[in-house]
Amino acid sequence: MFVVDTYDVIVIGAGHAGCEAALASARLGAKTLMATLNLDNIALMPCNPAVGGPGKSHLVREIDALGGEMGINTDKTCLQMRMLNTGKGPAVYSLRAQSDKKMYQLAMTKTLENQENLDVKQLMITDLLVEDGAVIGVRTELDEVYKAKCVILATGTYLKGKIIIGTCTYSGGPIGQRSAEDLSGSLLKAGLKLMRFKTGTPARVDRRTLRTDEMAKQEGDKDGHAFSFLSERKDRNKECCWLTFTNEETHKIIRDNLDRAPMCNGIITGIGPRYCPSIESKIVRFADKKRHQLFIEPEGESTEEMYVQGMSTSMPADVQYAFLRTIPGLEDVKIMRPGYAIEYDCLDPTQLTPWLETKKISGLFSAGQANGTSGYEEAAAQGLMAGINAALKIQGKDPFILTRSEAYIGVLIDDLVTKGTNEPYRIMTSRSEYRLILRQDNADLRLTQKGYDLGLVTQERYDRFSAKKEAIEQGIAALKEISVTPSKANLEKLERLGTAPIHTAITAYDLLRRNDVDYEALRTVFDLPELAADVEEEIEIMIKYEGYISRQMEQVEKMNRLEQKKMPADIVYADIDTLSAEARQKLDEIRPLSLGQASRISGVSPADITALLIVLEQHSREEKNHVSQ
Amino acid sequence: MFVVDTYDVIVIGAGHAGCEAALASARLGAKTLMATLNLDNIALMPCNPAVGGPGKSHLVREIDALGGEMGINTDKTCLQMRMLNTGKGPAVYSLRAQSDKKMYQLAMTKTLENQENLDVKQLMITDLLVEDGAVIGVRTELDEVYKAKCVILATGTYLKGKIIIGTCTYSGGPIGQRSAEDLSGSLLKAGLKLMRFKTGTPARVDRRTLRTDEMAKQEGDKDGHAFSFLSERKDRNKECCWLTFTNEETHKIIRDNLDRAPMCNGIITGIGPRYCPSIESKIVRFADKKRHQLFIEPEGESTEEMYVQGMSTSMPADVQYAFLRTIPGLEDVKIMRPGYAIEYDCLDPTQLTPWLETKKISGLFSAGQANGTSGYEEAAAQGLMAGINAALKIQGKDPFILTRSEAYIGVLIDDLVTKGTNEPYRIMTSRSEYRLILRQDNADLRLTQKGYDLGLVTQERYDRFSAKKEAIEQGIAALKEISVTPSKANLEKLERLGTAPIHTAITAYDLLRRNDVDYEALRTVFDLPELAADVEEEIEIMIKYEGYISRQMEQVEKMNRLEQKKMPADIVYADIDTLSAEARQKLDEIRPLSLGQASRISGVSPADITALLIVLEQHSREEKNHVSQ
Repeated sequence: MFVVDTYDVIVIGAGHAGCEAALASARLGAKTLMATLNLDNIALMPCNPAVGGPGKSHLVREIDALGGEMGINTDKTCLQMRMLNTGKGPAVYSLRAQSDKKMYQLAMTKTLENQENLDVKQLMITDLLVEDGAVIGVRTELDEVYKAKCVILATGTYLKGKIIIGTCTYSGGPIGQRSAEDLSGSLLKAGLKLMRFKTGTPARVDRRTLRTDEMAKQEGDKDGHAFSFLSERKDRNKECCWLTFTNEETHKIIRDNLDRAPMCNGIITGIGPRYCPSIESKIVRFADKKRHQLFIEPEGESTEEMYVQGMSTSMPADVQYAFLRTIPGLEDVKIMRPGYAIEYDCLDPTQLTPWLETKKISGLFSAGQANGTSGYEEAAAQGLMAGINAALKIQGKDPFILTRSEAYIGVLIDDLVTKGTNEPYRIMTSRSEYRLILRQDNADLRLTQKGYDLGLVTQERYDRFSAKKEAIEQGIAALKEISVTPSKANLEKLERLGTAPIHTAITAYDLLRRNDVDYEALRTVFDLPELAADVEEEIEIMIKYEGYISRQMEQVEKMNRLEQKKMPADIVYADIDTLSAEARQKLDEIRPLSLGQASRISGVSPADITALLIVLEQHSREEKNHVSQ
Repeated sequence: MFVVDTYDVIVIGAGHAGCEAALASARLGAKTLMATLNLDNIALMPCNPAVGGPGKSHLVREIDALGGEMGINTDKTCLQMRMLNTGKGPAVYSLRAQSDKKMYQLAMTKTLENQENLDVKQLMITDLLVEDGAVIGVRTELDEVYKAKCVILATGTYLKGKIIIGTCTYSGGPIGQRSAEDLSGSLLKAGLKLMRFKTGTPARVDRRTLRTDEMAKQEGDKDGHAFSFLSERKDRNKECCWLTFTNEETHKIIRDNLDRAPMCNGIITGIGPRYCPSIESKIVRFADKKRHQLFIEPEGESTEEMYVQGMSTSMPADVQYAFLRTIPGLEDVKIMRPGYAIEYDCLDPTQLTPWLETKKISGLFSAGQANGTSGYEEAAAQGLMAGINAALKIQGKDPFILTRSEAYIGVLIDDLVTKGTNEPYRIMTSRSEYRLILRQDNADLRLTQKGYDLGLVTQERYDRFSAKKEAIEQGIAALKEISVTPSKANLEKLERLGTAPIHTAITAYDLLRRNDVDYEALRTVFDLPELAADVEEEIEIMIKYEGYISRQMEQVEKMNRLEQKKMPADIVYADIDTLSAEARQKLDEIRPLSLGQASRISGVSPADITALLIVLEQHSREEKNHVSQ
């Protein structure tokens, strides 16, 4: 045994979870080691070359507001940006970027390797070192020991990773890398429960073999977008995507070969992602669907590889060729690398606290696919939170938790640790009860202050944020002060706005609540000063949706009453005989922090919550008596 | 079995040999497939981040003159350039570039993927398909078949690759990739002989942990350099290297741990490179040496990793740390990835013809480390030649062979196929009998015409080359026409030149032959027009070394008489009883093309050559008689 070094925090893995975890921990002053089994694959995008999209863009904006790196790095290295769902209301607006995979990796590597307090090393971790229920370090395949007070698992799909294409299977991580064969055993030995999940990717095809005239061109938005609050809003479009569809012939080939599909013939045993299924799963599950939408996406400026988004598969090579060539635009396609499935071990996330520490082993945190999620953004969000909480633990501070009404990050982690998941979990806007509050446009308003208080948000960001916040407040106040009377001049202005005349005096603020009035037009007609685009956008959304937003805020208040009822740390559920047997077992397993969290555990009924409420009241009466005696 | 496609030429491998082979083949019009087991690692530099140096720069310039890619790609992506050995005469001048590893890969990938006639695919080749002694294609691990008339092995260190660090060993290619476990067996089954070689690399260390004030800074030359004739000669310096040395303490640690060195304790069985040995080999073999020179080299602009050139090792991790930290500048060093050795299968190159086709299997070519060489440049040179010859075979044309007096490429290949090698072969200027002729500065003059005749040299390059050639000829002619008389004006000029006065009229040409006169000064003093830097350099070298060069040309002439005596293809050495038994066996094995090649086979004595000469004379008399009858 050779003790190489001692750290505060060791992060195992350098994917999207690992990168955020390592940066957050180091930025909060913890001496941090990021261990990756391949230094060339830091911030790898083994799946689609994109960041953001519905729900996911919300996470990226939240990560950014808290001082994380994903948004900045995406802005630096993207090939295209589009705002999705713009027809549907601001709660579901979703920014999506096509990324240059290699550039994304190189930029993130540079950031990590130059981060103060952070060492980045290529190490194959084989063992977690645990003493008296607490983590004390890790061992590598070279029998090196790195000591640490906290360890963050961010192992992605590498734990006993297994690649599957048709009948060909072998141990390995994504894109021909090594798998981590030993660490799973060490986790099991430490008493943790593991699950077996799978995910997959489609074939990458040669851009030169596409018939682009048979597909619809998907260009980026002309409007300048950015994920990060710090990035300039400018046109980042360099490449385009192509839209095409499967058809009956495609589906027939897949159906005819289902006996050769590892998903169906027993070769794959891990559970795949419901919301990002393989094409063979889609054909089976949505048998009546006539076609499936596909996007052909560039992987980067240095390569002709194109990603066939929507055609994830582990079918044999000949079947992959056959079905791809039925698709308009892909008739002559040449595969550059085949689609494949990967099975891997991950933790049952109900073993985690809401601050992502394992309940069983003190100082052991876990984030990303290791917790049963799917997606780069979900991984990054958890990585950030695990990194923050590991650093806080080192400092002896209370954990940092985001509630479901504060952030999608809160929704994501609460879902995982409270309900668990039996398939790779993906964030969606529909998972939130409060999606009108948790918009991507207001992530900075919701979270920058918290990031600043933690010490992750730089003074520069905070000053710019404060200025924006003030500008919004002033902008709204100004609108409230403009009284629009039904004078002739004003009626002319309303006509120019294309909105109905008024009969009594109202404020400009009220005018903006009308469906057919937007801020830009209002500002022009009433000679108001032009504000920054993001400030105007925010003013407009806040005013237009004010009614819905305040109703949702009331729900939050109501829910918060349950959230504020904290469960005593020493509560013994087994002793509460007014609870159902299932509730006793589940509550003991999950150990919810609050009555709110308890109410979301599957198997805990409203009757159980009432029972708990009574117990809590008794408990608090006893405490009071105890104090007054 | 699923036949995916049919090609003229399939190249297995995408390292430096594979890249040149694929490009040359495709550029000569052959429908070519480049198969790599990892599309992300095309043109990987798994060893040091540098191109060129003694002997190797000659190869790069020759590759460039023939229309290859290595020089262009290096110029595009390098971090620093230096001309080495400038104190020693133009025969050994050697340009050396520090490369940005990632950028080198990305630029080469882009070139390959956009090459007409070339497909690039990620495939794990498991079997060579042979029918009636000729190659007919390959099979992949997914049971796909790709048919082809020619296959080029450019498998580098991947055949049964095995990584070794201390007692830790596992199957794998460089930097955590997959090894090719099955192809070796297929080659053995086809009747080929394999050897087991090994190579290795040093640790990569964190730039931030270097004490640079204890090392000597190595900056690039201020003069603009370029490998390629097509590249602008400009300052390409972005980063610097650092020079330091091992010491007695370093050596003691290694000596004390030799029982743990896989090189010494039996774990490594493959044979390593004599001229690029591990540090433990150096300590053993040069026991009296007090120190060894080390260069600390940047790996790229996107990373803090630094390569410790000269410290290649497979010692256990703790020993690597211990000895590195004894080195001035590395006292606090942190290893980012450890040094390792890699063992791999390769072909005994005496199984190859001088055009790199296997004698046993028609259409099967081999290049690079697969032929027992070491070094990116050696690999690229062979790759280019294999690619050219595979394409020529498709066209039914005669092979393209370079002789030992035409190019280092000729020396390299002749050495390999004639003498074989029992250790990884590295080119050196001392391997050439004609090194005053085979300079890096005249590679274009030696080879561009041949590249043009083949069809690899573009018209643009050829026109620029022709202009340069003409400028040199005119420049030399002009010097011969200037008669310098011992007039007062001329004597003043000689004084300005700092050279001795003359007493009889001589030409400017003769003046330039003087040691203390250089072209630039001469041109200034005699008001000659300024020529391009490379033209002036060439004129100066040609005139200054004219005596030596013509003497070497005479030797070439003499040798050529032996080279021109071709061995009949049907000669049966076993029947020539005037030959020694060893000569009969070796000649039959190597099947030399000429008496010259025969004379270089180890075990073929001058007496055997005399005997062969008599046989050849009889043979040619019989042929003549046969014709005249």
